[in-house]
Amino acid sequence: MKNYIVHDAWHIIEMGFDPALNRVSESIFSIGNGRMGQRANFEEQYTGDTLQGSYIAGVYYPDKTRVGWWKNGYPEYFAKVLNAANWIGIDVAVDGVPLDLHTMQVSHFKRVLHMKEGYLLRQFTARFPDGKEVEVEAIRFCSLVDDECGVIRYRITAKNFSGTVAMTPYIDGGVRNADSNYDELFWEPVAKRGSEHRALLTMRTKKTDFWVTTGMHYELTHDGGNLTPREVAIEREDYMARSVTVEILEGETVEVRKYAVNLSSENHPKPEMADRAGQLLDRVVGKGFDCLLTEQADAWGLKWAESDVSIEGDVAAQQAIRFNIFQLHQTYTGEDDRLNIGPKGFTGEKYGGSTYWDTEAYCLPFYLATAPPRVARNLLVYRYKHLPKAIANAEKLGFGAGAALYPMVTINGEECHNEWEITFEEIHRNGAIAFAIYNYIRYTGDTSYLAQYGLEVLIGIARFWAQRVNWSEVRQRYVMLGVTGPNEYENNVNNNWYTNTIASWCLEYTISALGEVRESNAERYAAIVAKTALQTSETDRWAMIRSQLYYPVDEARGIFLQQDGFLDKALVPATDIPDEQRPLNQHWSWDRILRSCYIKQADVLQGLYLLEDRFDVETIRRNYDFYEPLTVHESSLSPCVHAILAARLGDEARAYQFYLRTARLDLDDYNNDTEDGLHITSMAGTWMSVVEGFAGMRVRDGRLHFNPMVPGKWTSYTFRVRFRGALLTVHITPKAVTFSNDGEQPASITVFGEHLAVDKKATVATPNYEKA
Amino acid sequence: MKNYIVHDAWHIIEMGFDPALNRVSESIFSIGNGRMGQRANFEEQYTGDTLQGSYIAGVYYPDKTRVGWWKNGYPEYFAKVLNAANWIGIDVAVDGVPLDLHTMQVSHFKRVLHMKEGYLLRQFTARFPDGKEVEVEAIRFCSLVDDECGVIRYRITAKNFSGTVAMTPYIDGGVRNADSNYDELFWEPVAKRGSEHRALLTMRTKKTDFWVTTGMHYELTHDGGNLTPREVAIEREDYMARSVTVEILEGETVEVRKYAVNLSSENHPKPEMADRAGQLLDRVVGKGFDCLLTEQADAWGLKWAESDVSIEGDVAAQQAIRFNIFQLHQTYTGEDDRLNIGPKGFTGEKYGGSTYWDTEAYCLPFYLATAPPRVARNLLVYRYKHLPKAIANAEKLGFGAGAALYPMVTINGEECHNEWEITFEEIHRNGAIAFAIYNYIRYTGDTSYLAQYGLEVLIGIARFWAQRVNWSEVRQRYVMLGVTGPNEYENNVNNNWYTNTIASWCLEYTISALGEVRESNAERYAAIVAKTALQTSETDRWAMIRSQLYYPVDEARGIFLQQDGFLDKALVPATDIPDEQRPLNQHWSWDRILRSCYIKQADVLQGLYLLEDRFDVETIRRNYDFYEPLTVHESSLSPCVHAILAARLGDEARAYQFYLRTARLDLDDYNNDTEDGLHITSMAGTWMSVVEGFAGMRVRDGRLHFNPMVPGKWTSYTFRVRFRGALLTVHITPKAVTFSNDGEQPASITVFGEHLAVDKKATVATPNYEKA
Repeated sequence: MKNYIVHDAWHIIEMGFDPALNRVSESIFSIGNGRMGQRANFEEQYTGDTLQGSYIAGVYYPDKTRVGWWKNGYPEYFAKVLNAANWIGIDVAVDGVPLDLHTMQVSHFKRVLHMKEGYLLRQFTARFPDGKEVEVEAIRFCSLVDDECGVIRYRITAKNFSGTVAMTPYIDGGVRNADSNYDELFWEPVAKRGSEHRALLTMRTKKTDFWVTTGMHYELTHDGGNLTPREVAIEREDYMARSVTVEILEGETVEVRKYAVNLSSENHPKPEMADRAGQLLDRVVGKGFDCLLTEQADAWGLKWAESDVSIEGDVAAQQAIRFNIFQLHQTYTGEDDRLNIGPKGFTGEKYGGSTYWDTEAYCLPFYLATAPPRVARNLLVYRYKHLPKAIANAEKLGFGAGAALYPMVTINGEECHNEWEITFEEIHRNGAIAFAIYNYIRYTGDTSYLAQYGLEVLIGIARFWAQRVNWSEVRQRYVMLGVTGPNEYENNVNNNWYTNTIASWCLEYTISALGEVRESNAERYAAIVAKTALQTSETDRWAMIRSQLYYPVDEARGIFLQQDGFLDKALVPATDIPDEQRPLNQHWSWDRILRSCYIKQADVLQGLYLLEDRFDVETIRRNYDFYEPLTVHESSLSPCVHAILAARLGDEARAYQFYLRTARLDLDDYNNDTEDGLHITSMAGTWMSVVEGFAGMRVRDGRLHFNPMVPGKWTSYTFRVRFRGALLTVHITPKAVTFSNDGEQPASITVFGEHLAVDKKATVATPNYEKA
Repeated sequence: MKNYIVHDAWHIIEMGFDPALNRVSESIFSIGNGRMGQRANFEEQYTGDTLQGSYIAGVYYPDKTRVGWWKNGYPEYFAKVLNAANWIGIDVAVDGVPLDLHTMQVSHFKRVLHMKEGYLLRQFTARFPDGKEVEVEAIRFCSLVDDECGVIRYRITAKNFSGTVAMTPYIDGGVRNADSNYDELFWEPVAKRGSEHRALLTMRTKKTDFWVTTGMHYELTHDGGNLTPREVAIEREDYMARSVTVEILEGETVEVRKYAVNLSSENHPKPEMADRAGQLLDRVVGKGFDCLLTEQADAWGLKWAESDVSIEGDVAAQQAIRFNIFQLHQTYTGEDDRLNIGPKGFTGEKYGGSTYWDTEAYCLPFYLATAPPRVARNLLVYRYKHLPKAIANAEKLGFGAGAALYPMVTINGEECHNEWEITFEEIHRNGAIAFAIYNYIRYTGDTSYLAQYGLEVLIGIARFWAQRVNWSEVRQRYVMLGVTGPNEYENNVNNNWYTNTIASWCLEYTISALGEVRESNAERYAAIVAKTALQTSETDRWAMIRSQLYYPVDEARGIFLQQDGFLDKALVPATDIPDEQRPLNQHWSWDRILRSCYIKQADVLQGLYLLEDRFDVETIRRNYDFYEPLTVHESSLSPCVHAILAARLGDEARAYQFYLRTARLDLDDYNNDTEDGLHITSMAGTWMSVVEGFAGMRVRDGRLHFNPMVPGKWTSYTFRVRFRGALLTVHITPKAVTFSNDGEQPASITVFGEHLAVDKKATVATPNYEKA
């Protein structure tokens, strides 16, 4: 845990340069626009510790999988998001000596992420060994408007000397992934094209043959006036630079504006990429830096107008929630149904930038409520398009007849993970993908989705569950053997309550979805039945399995059991674990974790969260009281569910404690791993903690329900949600709950069980009964 | 499964050259002497498919471990037996064209392993593209007498031409391991020394800095007369050759005798190695090839005199048992307590040449019965010496206070394996190591071993079990969670019956061993108590755990349950698995194997085998009848236990069927994996199938017991066992059982429950009551 980020409502601020924190800050100050992402590496050379990272959405490399003991069914490769050509680089030298913060005295160092306007600012003063001092200010952003474009303004001022400053903006395709399993280079050069002030470099990925053209165009200003000194071109096979040297006097400033573009063959025909990159550069250079920065601020203004959460009275909480929302928008914009959300977004290499169940289980609610429905819908369509591969994946594991098992980790629909206890057994992911369909329709009311896409996915998933259970003679029930639940601190267990529960729910929902489509769209229904060769005997069997599925329970305690045999463990609260042994996964061997009672994230509680309406509050409370003390929250996805349930149970203190734990996870580097990248998917959980936790927002019967509470430290909080054409601003104080509707449709709301109608353009207030 | 080895009582014979079988034959025709081993690679160049393998006992390389997802507690490296310098190479060229069976017509090809005399013969005729034909005969062996020495006699005859024959004996240190995880070279050259007819090359292993000096000396004979043509030296950094060219006439023969030595820094001071290699070469060259071959036959004669099993009436069974005995002796001679037995011996790289529980569970009985007691004792001392590392290993997993967990896989005492479900959870290996101490003392009567070495090991192991169990409130019993039993087709199960049973047995035996040593050697007892800081409270706790340990059972069937929840599985006999899905581990994904009822090797039966005297025959029968149909025998260690139990239950047909399955496993390449090397450790199981299975040999109360049967196809069988100074030849026919004692002590024997005394030099016969 660290605590060096200055608290501020709209800015993320680092004061002073600590090389030991550099990788952490490189993650935190990442910028992106859904199409590309960039860690907060320096423009100028830095020979100290750094993880360079420039990422292009959708461009991946099938890295040869590293594995010790091969198991039948393991994938051949792990699809990795690539560290792509460095487009930010601007080497600087003063009188021939390179500017490099690793080798000189640094003062007045400051990094600021301007979240409202969407750019990164860096300032510092550097003292060269010979005493010369320069002041530097660098601003950069990835444009939301021109989403293939990144822009940098880099200013250097001679503080106490006159001399020459050489500026060398470049593009470097000779980059590596730090996590390349066999130290392979993933890229090879295709073509170069250069002219004065401009360079275009096209690289291709090996094996996958993605092409990316990275282009740059720079402008130079000397103390306010444009300059065109003699340019020296430096080019290697995978590197292009343009170097200019300027004589400056003490107090003068040289400014470079570097316009960069990244075009991918996913979006452009390969033969035209270089031409198009040049055209795009012409366009953005034509706009100019100031115009692009204004457009950026306007575009971010629109995002904030739909999704801001403001908190009065608690600046740490305020900063944290905005940071999380900011990073989520930087990662995924919903414009492209081939893209999805990696656990680290575009802020690091870990988890390979691939898609996990996190998207459906944690991210979907955020995008449902804060973006137009097509954004969430695109996340669902991504999985629909992968259905054939999910069916093929299930076949590899011995299933058939159209059963689908979605991959644990994927970019293109193929499984990339290779731990048997996860890849083959953490099958609850199928449930999250089905539940997301239900959740999307419940929230948006877009029932057409079921016929168009959803039902086929549900049939594949239901078939999987029906084949995955077996009949137990001794129990006279169906059982599900050998699974790993969301609590990954248990492996290969029998009858994980969450998995059995979500499997049963899938069967039920698929049966009901079949009925709905049959009623609403007989033609499409017939087409789907024909396409999937669905038999009546199948649905009969699904209903029978549902009615005879076994669930482990502890009758005495009145709780659901995480899995068979859970009560055989020594049940010792997590508070008894010595601090120096936390986190367990860095201190205990795996067997010790597995046979302990400690829970990474409590999956019984996850099930109660998802299917809350099916359980009475006392059942939730008993389970919460049993599992919460055993939970070590070593998954970043854990605290948010506890925050929401604690709020549901009226336990404000614990809800607030869990909120803080999830909200400032990266800003305060809670788990000592922010250097690897940000926990993007758990950031959506932070949003849920506020909106579903403190505000108690639920969707039932086509209405939004609220049961708000206000954490003690907070004066008030406000958030915006879209709901079926309404755009609501929800303002909650200890006294009142106020709804303003800026949308196109009226909203039907239930607050503390009372119905409210909020017409468009109307504002309606109701007393806050929380403390009543 | 293949069937190309010609059946013969004393020879392993391959007729004709099939390149597709070459790797299989290279394994089968391996030679070795416990100090070094050599696959049956060709002396002359071979550009076809081959796995080169020359291995030196005790010389290993810590190969960087390949793993996908690191778990806390995993080892940093996998210690691998090394492919060492090629000492067999003799390149041959006729009129400048290399002899290479891959590129020419081959006829009259024959490989013969002369097991009685301990050498490999190869003969062939090769036709060069231009029609020239040569006849070749090569004999080679690794000397049992001079165990750092290998010898080759290579004869080539010009059949239909006159011309030049160039012979180039060489040593090549530039070898690689095929299984090097990162394609590293493990060796680097240290020094070379050459003179006429002789070359010495010293290589060192990276990281471990083992030095091996490989030396050669050759002699050349032309049509019977010695020759000294001009020799050309060819040397590179890691390669030394001596090339001579001879003019021969049609029908003439050139013969090279190559004497090679391999000295390891494990046995010689590094500065002296080259000198000593030269001295050893002087010595063996002085003896000459014929003398060395005679000595070899004599030394093998002594081994066979102690360990031969002869079978009348079934040449396939006869050949197989001799092959297994031959390979066991080639792998381990018991001369060096730093060495042990790898699952593949020195016949391939798989399993890294490391030690598994196989040694204690399967190999020990063979060496106990067929070699002087010091051989088996050295196997035990090997583990005693590793006790500090076993204690350190347990500490890594969170145990303390002297608890010891022996590694799953090791060369030097450190754990080398990295699958959590094996490394951390297949802890029954501790039980095998404790049981081996009991077994050794039971067999040899050498009770002094307990005080000298055994007790300390037992205390460490007992402490481990006592910490590994936990109290289950719901069961009011101690339970053992998260283990993998010998049946590795279940992982991370709770209360594996075998593991609980052997753990309990360990506690009991340790308590009784403490009492024994206290009685017999009070001084040593006090020293051990002081050294281990043993508390009375510990032994009290061991007794309590023993009395309150939980065992899963099925009361209805009257069987022990493999683990908690086993009966939840769909119980379908293995005969229902379609042939094309066998072996399961090559066709099913791991999760499917795990949740199936199919058993790799039946560990309940393993427990009944080890502790047979504690169970009545009906209990054994019920468990056998339940588990045998579910067992797929995909461990090579499985069939022998079934053979012994089937024999115990009087089921001769099944016992014979299992015997054949284990005995000809490699000769007939039953599992299609002999090309990787031979299943050395399971070969000891074959011997057990005969001696403990058909002959029903047991040790009880210091006596040998027999309950012989004769498989229908056999006329009779004979084997030799040592027992407490007696050396018994046991001859069993359907009519009589005859014992001859060539040892120094009388033997007390019980046959079909009747006591017999067999004085030294006496022969005693008793009727065979088997069919009575």
